[in-house]
Amino acid sequence: MDKHAQTGWLHRLVTRRSVLATSTVGLAVPAAMTLGAGGSGMHTAQAQTGVVKKITMYAENLPNNEVGYGLEPGKATIPGPLLQIYEGDTLEITLVNRTDKRLSIHPHGVDYSTESDGSPLNNSFNGPGETRVYTWRSREMTFAGQGRMFIPGSAGYWHYHDHAYGGDHGTIGLTKGLYGGLIVRRRGDILPDKTFVAVLDDSRINNKKAPDTPMFEANLGQRVEFLAIGHGSLYHTFHLHAHRWADNRTGYLESPSDPSAIIDIKDLNPGTSFGFQVIAGQGVGPGAWMYHCHVQSHSDTGMSGIFLVRNADGSMPPGAQEAIDRFHGHTHAATAGDVPPPPAPEGHSHN
Amino acid sequence: MDKHAQTGWLHRLVTRRSVLATSTVGLAVPAAMTLGAGGSGMHTAQAQTGVVKKITMYAENLPNNEVGYGLEPGKATIPGPLLQIYEGDTLEITLVNRTDKRLSIHPHGVDYSTESDGSPLNNSFNGPGETRVYTWRSREMTFAGQGRMFIPGSAGYWHYHDHAYGGDHGTIGLTKGLYGGLIVRRRGDILPDKTFVAVLDDSRINNKKAPDTPMFEANLGQRVEFLAIGHGSLYHTFHLHAHRWADNRTGYLESPSDPSAIIDIKDLNPGTSFGFQVIAGQGVGPGAWMYHCHVQSHSDTGMSGIFLVRNADGSMPPGAQEAIDRFHGHTHAATAGDVPPPPAPEGHSHN
Amino acid sequence: MDKHAQTGWLHRLVTRRSVLATSTVGLAVPAAMTLGAGGSGMHTAQAQTGVVKKITMYAENLPNNEVGYGLEPGKATIPGPLLQIYEGDTLEITLVNRTDKRLSIHPHGVDYSTESDGSPLNNSFNGPGETRVYTWRSREMTFAGQGRMFIPGSAGYWHYHDHAYGGDHGTIGLTKGLYGGLIVRRRGDILPDKTFVAVLDDSRINNKKAPDTPMFEANLGQRVEFLAIGHGSLYHTFHLHAHRWADNRTGYLESPSDPSAIIDIKDLNPGTSFGFQVIAGQGVGPGAWMYHCHVQSHSDTGMSGIFLVRNADGSMPPGAQEAIDRFHGHTHAATAGDVPPPPAPEGHSHN
Repeated sequence: MDKHAQTGWLHRLVTRRSVLATSTVGLAVPAAMTLGAGGSGMHTAQAQTGVVKKITMYAENLPNNEVGYGLEPGKATIPGPLLQIYEGDTLEITLVNRTDKRLSIHPHGVDYSTESDGSPLNNSFNGPGETRVYTWRSREMTFAGQGRMFIPGSAGYWHYHDHAYGGDHGTIGLTKGLYGGLIVRRRGDILPDKTFVAVLDDSRINNKKAPDTPMFEANLGQRVEFLAIGHGSLYHTFHLHAHRWADNRTGYLESPSDPSAIIDIKDLNPGTSFGFQVIAGQGVGPGAWMYHCHVQSHSDTGMSGIFLVRNADGSMPPGAQEAIDRFHGHTHAATAGDVPPPPAPEGHSHN
Repeated sequence: MDKHAQTGWLHRLVTRRSVLATSTVGLAVPAAMTLGAGGSGMHTAQAQTGVVKKITMYAENLPNNEVGYGLEPGKATIPGPLLQIYEGDTLEITLVNRTDKRLSIHPHGVDYSTESDGSPLNNSFNGPGETRVYTWRSREMTFAGQGRMFIPGSAGYWHYHDHAYGGDHGTIGLTKGLYGGLIVRRRGDILPDKTFVAVLDDSRINNKKAPDTPMFEANLGQRVEFLAIGHGSLYHTFHLHAHRWADNRTGYLESPSDPSAIIDIKDLNPGTSFGFQVIAGQGVGPGAWMYHCHVQSHSDTGMSGIFLVRNADGSMPPGAQEAIDRFHGHTHAATAGDVPPPPAPEGHSHN
Repeated sequence: MDKHAQTGWLHRLVTRRSVLATSTVGLAVPAAMTLGAGGSGMHTAQAQTGVVKKITMYAENLPNNEVGYGLEPGKATIPGPLLQIYEGDTLEITLVNRTDKRLSIHPHGVDYSTESDGSPLNNSFNGPGETRVYTWRSREMTFAGQGRMFIPGSAGYWHYHDHAYGGDHGTIGLTKGLYGGLIVRRRGDILPDKTFVAVLDDSRINNKKAPDTPMFEANLGQRVEFLAIGHGSLYHTFHLHAHRWADNRTGYLESPSDPSAIIDIKDLNPGTSFGFQVIAGQGVGPGAWMYHCHVQSHSDTGMSGIFLVRNADGSMPPGAQEAIDRFHGHTHAATAGDVPPPPAPEGHSHN
C-alpha cells in the first residue's frame, strides 16, 4: 500500500479527536451483513469475514513533558487516534517508538497473542527507538453450545494504552498521555455523526484541567457518540448534563423490553471504559451543557468541560457564548432571578 | 390552583421521607396506558400524554449549619421531598431561596432547557432571597430509526441537588443537605407500598452518622422501594442484608430470560443513584436487618443503619428491639451461642 | 450422615481453591430440571426442590497472624472453601470457632433468618471457642404478580465473610483472611471445568502481594470460571488480559439480543462480587496472561498475578515459563523488537 493510498484509507478508517471528529465512513460496511437482533442463522455466522487493516503509529515526545501516539510522525495527539473496526476485522499496527524509553501499545477487548500483549511480562514492547508490530483481531459472537447462550464477540467501547513506559504497567506512560480510544462495532450497529473521546486520568480530562479541557461541539439533532475512558489511580463518575443513555452495550434500548437502567452518569474507574450515543440537544435544546466528574473534589479542581450543542444550522444558540466565557473566567458577575436572562445575539463575541 | 388544592395535590404527588413515607397514589395513572414489555404499536406512542404539575419548594437554613429543601416554609428536610412523576409528565418547580446564599436545583435524568440547568455555567440559580422557576420535562422511549433500537425514555431512579451553593458544582450545598430523590416511572411499572431514600454523602447517610442514621420500617410482605443516592467526594457500596435485587432499571427481572445479575450490594459513587423494590422479609422473615456501606472504614465509622421489618401485623418481631438497642449502644454485653436469644416483648421500649 | 459419607459428599459439593480446583460434580443436577430461557410454565416452578446440605466449617488461626475457614480442622485456607449450591438448596453450616476471638460467617445473596445473619447486631456470632449453626436457604425466581416481571432468585456469584471479628463489621476478620466464595447456580447454567476465586482485599489478592499472588492454571480450551470479590476499604478494577465477558449474570450472552456490555475489566469495590466464564485462550492462544487491578498505584505495588493457559495437552507453551520467571524476578534483562522471543522448551524450569 503506497503512502497516498494509505493516507486515504486512514482518513476513512481512523479519525483524530479534534481534527476530523470521527467520521463513520471509515468503517467499510459489507453489504447485506446487517445483523438483526433476532437474526435467523445467527450462530452459523462464525466464519470471520473481516479484513486486515494495516496502520503505522508513532509514539513520540510532546511539549510539556508529555508523550502521545499519532498516525504520522510529528502528529501525535492526546488522546491518540481513535481506532475503529467491525467485529471480524484485524488491525495490524506497526508501532514506531520515537522516544528513548521503552513503551508499548496494549488494547482492551480484542484478541491478541502474547507477542502482541504489550506487556513487559510477555517481553512485548518497543525498546527505545524500536519498531514492533502488534496484531489485534476481533470476532463475532458464537454459540456457546448450550441453551440459547452465546460467547460474546468483540464489539465494545474499548481503549488502548501503553503498558511498559516507566514500569511493568505503563503508569508513567499513561500519565504522559499514551492512551486512546478503540471502538469495535457489531454489524448493524447505528453509526454516529461524530465521536468524542473523554479520558478521565487522575485529576485531568485528556491530560487537561478546566478551562482547558476539550469543548465537544455538535449541532442540534446530530447523533453524537461519547467514548469515556478512565485511567490513573483515582475513581471518577462521568456525568453529562441534559442527556441520558441506557447502561448497556450501545446506550440504546435493544427493544422495548430491554431491562437496562437509564443513566446520565456512570462510574469511570482506572482501566474501564464505556460508550453511548445521544441525539445532541434532544428534548432539551441547544446550549452549553456541562460534562464533568461528579466527585465533588474533582469537579471543583478542574475535571469539567463543555458539550456545546449549536443550533441545527451550526449557529450559536442564545446564552452559549456567555456560558463559555464564564467557564473561561472572562466574566465574573452573575445575576439570577426567576426570569431567564435575555438571549444573546448569535455569535456574540466575548471580547 | 389555590393553596388548599395545591396542598391536597402535593399530598398525592409528593411525599416526604419520614412523614408520609412514600405514597404511590401521588402518581395519577392514566387508564389504559399500561405498557406491556412487548406492547404492540410501542414506537407510535410518541405523543406525550403527561400533565404539568406545579410545586413550590423552599430552600432554607436548618439547625446545625445545615440547609434543606421543603414543600412549605419551615418544613425543610434532609433529604428534601421525594418527587415522583410518570414519563411524559412535566414538573414546574418554583424554588424560593430563603437563605442569603446563591443556590439552585439541578435534576438528573429529566429534560430541561439551559435556563433550568441549575448551574452557574448557564446563569441558572437563585441569588440570595430570590425566587426562580425550574421546569423539568420527561418522555417515553422512542424508536431510534434502525433495527429494534429505542432511544431511552426518562424512567429511572434519579435525584436532584444544588449546583451553585458555595461554588460552581454545589459542593457546599450538598454537604449542607441540599439534595433529594426523584423517581420517574414508566407506565406499567409496579408501584411500591413505600419508598425509602438513602443518600450516602461523604461519611454520612442522609447527613447522619450511626446510630442516628434513618431506621427504615416496613411490615413483613410489604413492597418496599429503596432509592440510593451517592454524593460528596468518597466512594461507597450500598449493601442491604437478607434482600437482593436485579441490577437493572427496576430491580425485578423483566422476564425469565432477563440477563441481569442479581445483587445485594452496588457501587454508589458521587452523583450516581439506583433503585429497586423488595418484598420486606421475603424468604428471611422479619427482624432488624442492617443496611450499610461495605467500605469497611466507612461502616466502622457510622455509615450503617437498620431496615426494620416488623411482623405482618405491624408488631415487633422477636429480638428486633434488642438489636435496635444494641445499635444505639444502650446495651453493651453480648453473648453468643447456637441458641437464638429469647424473643423480646412486642414494642419493648429501650429507654 | 457419617463422617465418611460427609467427606465424600464434600468432595462433590465443595472444592478448595488450590487443592481440588473447582469440580463441578459437586452440584447434583436433578434430571429434567434444565430451565430454558423461555421455558414454559416458568412461573409455576415455585416449589423448592432443593436438598439440605450439611457441612462443618472451622475458623482457625494460621501462621503470619492470619485466620481462615476450612472444611476440616487444621485445613483452613485463604480464601476459604468455595461453596456451591443450586437455587432451591439449603446449606446448613456448623461453624466451629477454634480461635479465642468472636467471629461469624455472613453470606451474600442467599436467604437467612436473623439468627444466621452473622452480625453482632443480631447477636449472631460464635464467641471464642464456640460452635454455632448458620442456615442459608436459596430459591428460584418467582412471578412478581404483574406484567412479565419476576422476583429474582438466588443465583449469583456471591461470597461469605466474617462480620464480627474485631468489630461489628468484621473489618479485622476480613483483613486476616476470613472470606470465601459462594456460587448459587440456576438450573440449566453452563458448568465450568474449573473455578478460580480472586479476592482483592485492600492492597492484596487473596491476602498475597505479587509475585506471591495465585497463579491460576488451565489448559487451552477449558471452560474456566472466575469469581472476583472485593474486600477492605479500597476501590479496585479487576482486569484480565486477552479474555472478555458479558457484564451480566453469567458472562455469556443470554441470546443474540442480550443488550449487555462486553467487558474485560470491572469495578470490584468492597463487598461486591461478580463472576464469569471464559474459554481459556480462545482466539488468543496459550500463554502467561496477566490479571491485575487496573488502579495503577495498586498494580504497581503488588496487585497482579498470572493466568497461565497451557497447551491443550497440558504442556507449557512457548515463552510462558520465561514470563513466569520474569514475574518472579528471576530474570531482569529484557530485550524487545519486532521479532518474538524464541520459544522456550516445554516445562522449562526456572530454578
